Amino acid sequence: MFETAEVGHVIDKETYAAELPTLRSALLDAQFDLKQARKFATVVLIAGVDGAGKGETVNLLNEWMDPRHVETHAFGAPSDEELARPNMWRFWRALPPRGKIGILFGSWYTGPVVGRALGNLSDPEFDLEVERINRFERMLADEGILLLKFWFHLSKKAQKKRLQKLESNPRTRWRVTDQDWHNFKRYDDFRAVSAKAVRETDMAHAPWIIVEGADARYRSLTVAKTLLGALRVRLDNPSAIHSALAAPPVRPIDARNILDTLDLAQRTEKSEYEARLEELQGRLALAVRHPRFAGKSVVAVFEGSDAAGKGGAIRRITAALDARHYDIVPVAAPTEEERLQPYLWRFWRRLPGRGRTAIFDRSWYGRVLVERVEGFCGDADWLRAYSEINDFEEQMHENNMIVCKFWLQVSKDEQLARFTERQSSQFKRFKITDEDWRNRDKWDAYTMAVCDMVDRTSTEIAPWTLVAAEDKYTARLKVLETLCDRIEAALQKKKKK
Amino acid sequence: MFETAEVGHVIDKETYAAELPTLRSALLDAQFDLKQARKFATVVLIAGVDGAGKGETVNLLNEWMDPRHVETHAFGAPSDEELARPNMWRFWRALPPRGKIGILFGSWYTGPVVGRALGNLSDPEFDLEVERINRFERMLADEGILLLKFWFHLSKKAQKKRLQKLESNPRTRWRVTDQDWHNFKRYDDFRAVSAKAVRETDMAHAPWIIVEGADARYRSLTVAKTLLGALRVRLDNPSAIHSALAAPPVRPIDARNILDTLDLAQRTEKSEYEARLEELQGRLALAVRHPRFAGKSVVAVFEGSDAAGKGGAIRRITAALDARHYDIVPVAAPTEEERLQPYLWRFWRRLPGRGRTAIFDRSWYGRVLVERVEGFCGDADWLRAYSEINDFEEQMHENNMIVCKFWLQVSKDEQLARFTERQSSQFKRFKITDEDWRNRDKWDAYTMAVCDMVDRTSTEIAPWTLVAAEDKYTARLKVLETLCDRIEAALQKKKKK
Repeated sequence: MFETAEVGHVIDKETYAAELPTLRSALLDAQFDLKQARKFATVVLIAGVDGAGKGETVNLLNEWMDPRHVETHAFGAPSDEELARPNMWRFWRALPPRGKIGILFGSWYTGPVVGRALGNLSDPEFDLEVERINRFERMLADEGILLLKFWFHLSKKAQKKRLQKLESNPRTRWRVTDQDWHNFKRYDDFRAVSAKAVRETDMAHAPWIIVEGADARYRSLTVAKTLLGALRVRLDNPSAIHSALAAPPVRPIDARNILDTLDLAQRTEKSEYEARLEELQGRLALAVRHPRFAGKSVVAVFEGSDAAGKGGAIRRITAALDARHYDIVPVAAPTEEERLQPYLWRFWRRLPGRGRTAIFDRSWYGRVLVERVEGFCGDADWLRAYSEINDFEEQMHENNMIVCKFWLQVSKDEQLARFTERQSSQFKRFKITDEDWRNRDKWDAYTMAVCDMVDRTSTEIAPWTLVAAEDKYTARLKVLETLCDRIEAALQKKKKK
Repeated sequence: MFETAEVGHVIDKETYAAELPTLRSALLDAQFDLKQARKFATVVLIAGVDGAGKGETVNLLNEWMDPRHVETHAFGAPSDEELARPNMWRFWRALPPRGKIGILFGSWYTGPVVGRALGNLSDPEFDLEVERINRFERMLADEGILLLKFWFHLSKKAQKKRLQKLESNPRTRWRVTDQDWHNFKRYDDFRAVSAKAVRETDMAHAPWIIVEGADARYRSLTVAKTLLGALRVRLDNPSAIHSALAAPPVRPIDARNILDTLDLAQRTEKSEYEARLEELQGRLALAVRHPRFAGKSVVAVFEGSDAAGKGGAIRRITAALDARHYDIVPVAAPTEEERLQPYLWRFWRRLPGRGRTAIFDRSWYGRVLVERVEGFCGDADWLRAYSEINDFEEQMHENNMIVCKFWLQVSKDEQLARFTERQSSQFKRFKITDEDWRNRDKWDAYTMAVCDMVDRTSTEIAPWTLVAAEDKYTARLKVLETLCDRIEAALQKKKKK
């Protein structure tokens, strides 16, 4: 894997000096075009062997380009806000918006590679991490992000020499730490693990560029030219983005679907409702105040037909919670900052910390529901959303988040009755819009989208709960009961590592 | 101060039940109007005695209103990201955008009141904090935020009774902590300090409402009605916002100004420049790598005439820094999220953590420069900006941030020469816009604005450095030298508490 980066690449001073002015000017030009077009973001990932010139190269890139439109992120020890969320949260936070270049120094590779090299991860665990990285990078590419991954390599001999040289100079001595020497002793382990990681994640949409790190001029020119080339190709061929072909959605071959299995005729009497409501709210209140809950969090997702009673169900939950410990996230159109980022970015930023409950009133499922049905995104986009969402929720689950997803279903007749009632009620007038009526015309298309969604995203760790919402009392009890069951079950289990 | 909240206010069940439906419906209406108009944000601050029903009231407000458009923030121990920044950072983070209601549970009062009551703050220190709070709340009001501050009070006897009652019920026992009882022993101290804080911060634009906390129905109705009343007045009288009268700007009575004192004729030879540049960059590199710098940070602000060479000066700084440890913040038009917040919000969010350098390419001074000259904001807005900015920078200073502000000045002739050169250069073509030419026509107005700015915001802790930028070499050396001097001086001093 790394042999070609041990051949002793060298660029002489004259060649370097001759190439530099044109290269810098072209890089600035490309950066300017990127910024003007705002069509895509560029992520430059810098990884590799210590002492191979990663830091110098990053500094040089900042020097050669307009540093005002480059965002460099180095990842050291995570902050406590980062520790309270899935590992990938800190990287989502650092993604550059469209039009910018983000340089990531340290990345999602660091954890798995170091973990495996030092023996803290088993081979299958490492393989799983690699597979996740591939899915994550596939998503970045699908979102139109230009992703370039540079691996800076040094042979064992060259690394030793380099570390010694840095140490002997008083001005650079601070850069060599005990950890560096400690890692050097494990050079062969690191090399083997890195080679595997690089090999298995080298994709056309997220290529690795192996850079021999011994010669400063060689490595600088290599990185700069690669970046320039990739930027130019993308800038000059805007249509090259979104080439992914979508498999055509398949219509169900009979008229039966999972929503039909719901018994919408269920009813709950008021007196029973009130008694059970109090009981369930009491259970919920106790569950979220359990000492073990402090290490967990709840992500509750509400989707459903218009007028299915999401708001009412949410209020029956929050009545049992302390307002200091929950956030409700009403999902509407994305903001300007959110529109410059990958689709899931705006949901990642709202993930709750430990001991908290986040309630999403509509959610990331918008992509496979309204955006699919209304054509707000391409077929390829909503088709890939299923697996992206599954990955997202899996990460929540592994971070001790209890993911509860509710689909509230009413019949077409009941919806009409509620629409009519809302229109005539002063109190609820703001709950009904023209859009609601338009959505109603697409009832069948929405039904199909819901069934696909449930099929593809109801997982063991983050199951969908289909709620017959024809009767509001029945629906609210079902939601509360499910939530209590899920939280109580999670509290039984031992805390995950 | 609190005597009227010890008279035993009680609302009977019937009155409460009779008032509630209308009140809730009116609150929802007001909240809807607030959301639709998006003209102002509402901040509801909840403070007062433990056990006086603060939490219950917050929960009730969330129940009565649409909780999807209420953001409740409780402030416990700060996170490490918060600890790395000025105290007020966490409150700025929690400000609701226009159209929303933010409930703050715990606030900027907690620190000073607790500190003084427990004797960790002296009287003068406490007075200073109170004065700052007044300035901060004045700013919120000037930004159009509706600020309501509720102080929940209990007599000593009532508080004791309440804590005992909570403790005796297994379902509420968890809510009473040792700290609560510890604070109760200091009841009289807390009362005296609180009374002073409330008295001295009770302003027409940020009134305190003292709420007797013993009776749940009384306190709930009081808070809800007050909130409703304040919302309605503001919603129904949109012109009531921004009534502040601006003092007319005074023209200087002679034609001399501070910028004239700059010797624009200074020149530096290339050979001298190169030698000194290397020396200064070396000094800077060492200074930011000093162990003591890990507890500090640098905020460098660049303002200047168009084409004065800000970008070039910034690049000479970053060349000495590690790209992993600085951020450059190019300040352009605010984003949608930023436009829904007070003016300084977008700068607060970019403050650097410890050990980092943030370079602002243009800055919060835009308000008193381009916004003033071009009339993008009212006179009252830019006039109040001076003191808001001084407060902002004072907080940075106290948080071990080294604030360096540079004004780069060129003559009108030199600017013309540079504009012309930029237009003819392929490499720099993107650096010149029509706006630059328009700004040039307002040279005198800008000069006056700059002089006022320097007069009013060049403080001992955050001085302006006026840089003669007619000669780029001279300017860059001046900037670097100033930066080195400031950082080195700060490293000499003992770290502040």
